[in-house]
Amino acid sequence: MSAWKKLGSEAIGDFRIFKLLRERFVSPRTGAEVQAVIADSGDWVNVVALTHDDRIVLIRQFRFGTEQVTLEIPGGIIDPGEAPLFAAQRELLEETGYRADSWQELGAVEPNPAFMRNRLHCFVARGCQRVADQAQDPGEAISVELRPFREVDGLVASGEIRHALVIVALHLLALAGPRSSVVEQP
Amino acid sequence: MSAWKKLGSEAIGDFRIFKLLRERFVSPRTGAEVQAVIADSGDWVNVVALTHDDRIVLIRQFRFGTEQVTLEIPGGIIDPGEAPLFAAQRELLEETGYRADSWQELGAVEPNPAFMRNRLHCFVARGCQRVADQAQDPGEAISVELRPFREVDGLVASGEIRHALVIVALHLLALAGPRSSVVEQP
Repeated sequence: MSAWKKLGSEAIGDFRIFKLLRERFVSPRTGAEVQAVIADSGDWVNVVALTHDDRIVLIRQFRFGTEQVTLEIPGGIIDPGEAPLFAAQRELLEETGYRADSWQELGAVEPNPAFMRNRLHCFVARGCQRVADQAQDPGEAISVELRPFREVDGLVASGEIRHALVIVALHLLALAGPRSSVVEQP
Repeated sequence: MSAWKKLGSEAIGDFRIFKLLRERFVSPRTGAEVQAVIADSGDWVNVVALTHDDRIVLIRQFRFGTEQVTLEIPGGIIDPGEAPLFAAQRELLEETGYRADSWQELGAVEPNPAFMRNRLHCFVARGCQRVADQAQDPGEAISVELRPFREVDGLVASGEIRHALVIVALHLLALAGPRSSVVEQP
């Protein structure tokens, strides 16, 4: 199973959250030339944020893609030059006003390798406490909601949490071994 | 937490795997008008396909988004008018040549509610057996790989499986209760 040779890449447009590229590849199996449309975006982060009393910090917001209000974990786009951990700490603070005692990276996954070029870094943040007001831009309307962490599996099973990338972070947390790579928040 | 009013929707382009829309919404919090770019795609399916001897049917293929060879479960786009279950059975057969004794829908999730309008239906297929050759189009080069199902958590933890939507299906399978909604394959 070998890589396909890329014949060319052409910018189609810049849509703020991603640039669209049209690329041409040649199949090592058939020699056929295939055109692919690629969404090229910065990497993303999300955070399973847990309080001292085993609650998870969730956010509720209207999402333009599905035109529905969703229940999610905090997250967002890593700014250019920003470290994933710093972006996760920033997004947690901005979206919820919470800050954590300790952070652990759970792993990095590919949101959709078929047509997206970016990665998602998932974190768990422990010992979260509210230290500030939310800092939302005019295009956001986020409400914060704490739920006992033991209810999370039920929220996924019932479809109340249905954002794929949130479910991925919960899965990586379930698989996480001993807290070997805990980073104290500076 | 209420829905945002949509002021307008304009087609930007049709890129085969999705149409791109530019839509305008008004914030119920600030009254601000926000522009969003939406990828409008058909719904997707994927399948955790298990054999009688507790192996999982995986596929390895080059992905144009990440420009890497990935290890995934079978899946694809639901054809217009096609039922999700039928699409899952079709994709499993086309991509791997396998057919299952029984099927169970694990749930439907949103691949990315921020900018994608579609859903992903996840299935588990049990009692899978190879009944045909793969039926790949010229733009596919897929190899089939069976692994003991007990190794799957390790494949995710090591990053060998890193496609977010594959990990979601594995999580829904882990959460699935008794096999109440098993459908015998017609």
